Amino acid sequence: MIILDGKKISQEIKKEITETVKSIVAAGKPAPHLAAILVGNDGASETYVGHKEKDCHEVGFRSTVLRFPDSISQEELLSEIVRLNNDDDITGLIVQLPLPKHISEKDVIETINPQKDVDGFHPVNVGKMVSGIPSFVSATPDGIIELMKRYNIETAGKNCVILGRSNIVGRPMANLLSQKAYPGDCTVTICHSRSKNIKEICAAADIIVAALGVPEFLTADMVKDGAVVIDVGITRVKADNKSGFRLVGDVKFDEVSIKTSYITPVPGGVGPMTRVALLKNTLKSYELKNN
Amino acid sequence: MIILDGKKISQEIKKEITETVKSIVAAGKPAPHLAAILVGNDGASETYVGHKEKDCHEVGFRSTVLRFPDSISQEELLSEIVRLNNDDDITGLIVQLPLPKHISEKDVIETINPQKDVDGFHPVNVGKMVSGIPSFVSATPDGIIELMKRYNIETAGKNCVILGRSNIVGRPMANLLSQKAYPGDCTVTICHSRSKNIKEICAAADIIVAALGVPEFLTADMVKDGAVVIDVGITRVKADNKSGFRLVGDVKFDEVSIKTSYITPVPGGVGPMTRVALLKNTLKSYELKNN
Repeated sequence: MIILDGKKISQEIKKEITETVKSIVAAGKPAPHLAAILVGNDGASETYVGHKEKDCHEVGFRSTVLRFPDSISQEELLSEIVRLNNDDDITGLIVQLPLPKHISEKDVIETINPQKDVDGFHPVNVGKMVSGIPSFVSATPDGIIELMKRYNIETAGKNCVILGRSNIVGRPMANLLSQKAYPGDCTVTICHSRSKNIKEICAAADIIVAALGVPEFLTADMVKDGAVVIDVGITRVKADNKSGFRLVGDVKFDEVSIKTSYITPVPGGVGPMTRVALLKNTLKSYELKNN
Repeated sequence: MIILDGKKISQEIKKEITETVKSIVAAGKPAPHLAAILVGNDGASETYVGHKEKDCHEVGFRSTVLRFPDSISQEELLSEIVRLNNDDDITGLIVQLPLPKHISEKDVIETINPQKDVDGFHPVNVGKMVSGIPSFVSATPDGIIELMKRYNIETAGKNCVILGRSNIVGRPMANLLSQKAYPGDCTVTICHSRSKNIKEICAAADIIVAALGVPEFLTADMVKDGAVVIDVGITRVKADNKSGFRLVGDVKFDEVSIKTSYITPVPGGVGPMTRVALLKNTLKSYELKNN
């Protein structure tokens, strides 16, 4: 069993990006610049945006966080996005979700210039991704694909089961892994809350991507020997330790891991790959514009 | 076994559309107007565009066919599209594919105003369809979904196999049937040329959508009793009859049909539903603009 070490791989990628940024700056050009819009005071959102700033700093990107109160109107927010769309100095633009209820996330996402949409949420980028046209793929699917690539996981002709049909993980993973590409060319089955025989379907799979958000859903009896298991879940559950909680994936790691050929740990698997994917997309946006 | 009679259902839908158009016109408003661009002299394209004109005429839509020689430059074609985008009298705009090699189909499709893209090929519409946001769904998948709806085919929790991963049929069908919707909520498996155990996968399916373009690919041993079979294939094969050919689907109809609960014939199944879907989208575009 080989651990798909997202932490290690993400550090390698950050090194590669750092080198590229160094050569950009050495050529007298401005470094890529990520702008993040943060509305309100949600604790988790603050943490995520903080991580993104830290990651940018680490690879030499410039980053700007624009903070607005919960009371901002949709109109004001959209006009701020338009201003950033038109600002040549901004490479990539993200709006941290969720947004207050009086603001339509759909309208916000559709206002972002698709060429600066490094989160890959704009319908144009989703549509291109699905059709196999180069685009910005959203962070978690992009991170998983990159991790599979770096470990040379065989995918062509494999039976792959995706657990979960969310627009940000399950659905893009199903579309990407069924495409004529590497990683890809899998026979993909997408399962969800209405699926009836998940256990049997999983037990026949060569590759399982678990993205249900149900702690320890995938147990050893659902996994065949030698399968590849990607765990996207990350849930805090109460524990008798100092912090009072531990982080648990969608996979019962102890019993499943011994049966697998490759498996991602939680934490340290998909999470760091997701973080680094945003940096990859920002650099890509920079290069598309400047090449 | 019940025949999913696309011919009959499409005629019912055309009647419904005709009634709606009558009341639009009776209210003193102009009828919906479909513009089709046809480049070159491809025989099949001529036929398809001819069908579309005839269908428009039948329901009371106005239709305009704009013909250009093979020699038209991409720039000229794109500026013609922009002109039609900006023409308030045009409800829906389609460009008949394929186009001559010197013209990028991707650039052409992305130039069409998504709100007039009644073929549903623009990435914005593909992205919205995938994300479950109301949009123009391309004609064949929309026609199949409508046919399943009109026959009240049960789909929730069913195992559905899609044969083929094309951007115009297989992939959208997989996305639509796995969504939280009716028809939908299926556990969907998408198979293609690299899939290894198609026979076993099909034999376990409650619903099969065959869209490989391989005549009589699906045989009786691949279908379980009571399955629903949707046949998207239509291929001309040589035959000892007057015309010298017959139309054959992806399903070996004679032996498969007796095992199924519902099945589409070829011709007269998915084909007419595809034709009427373009009319539905054109009316939808009209109503979105005028309501």
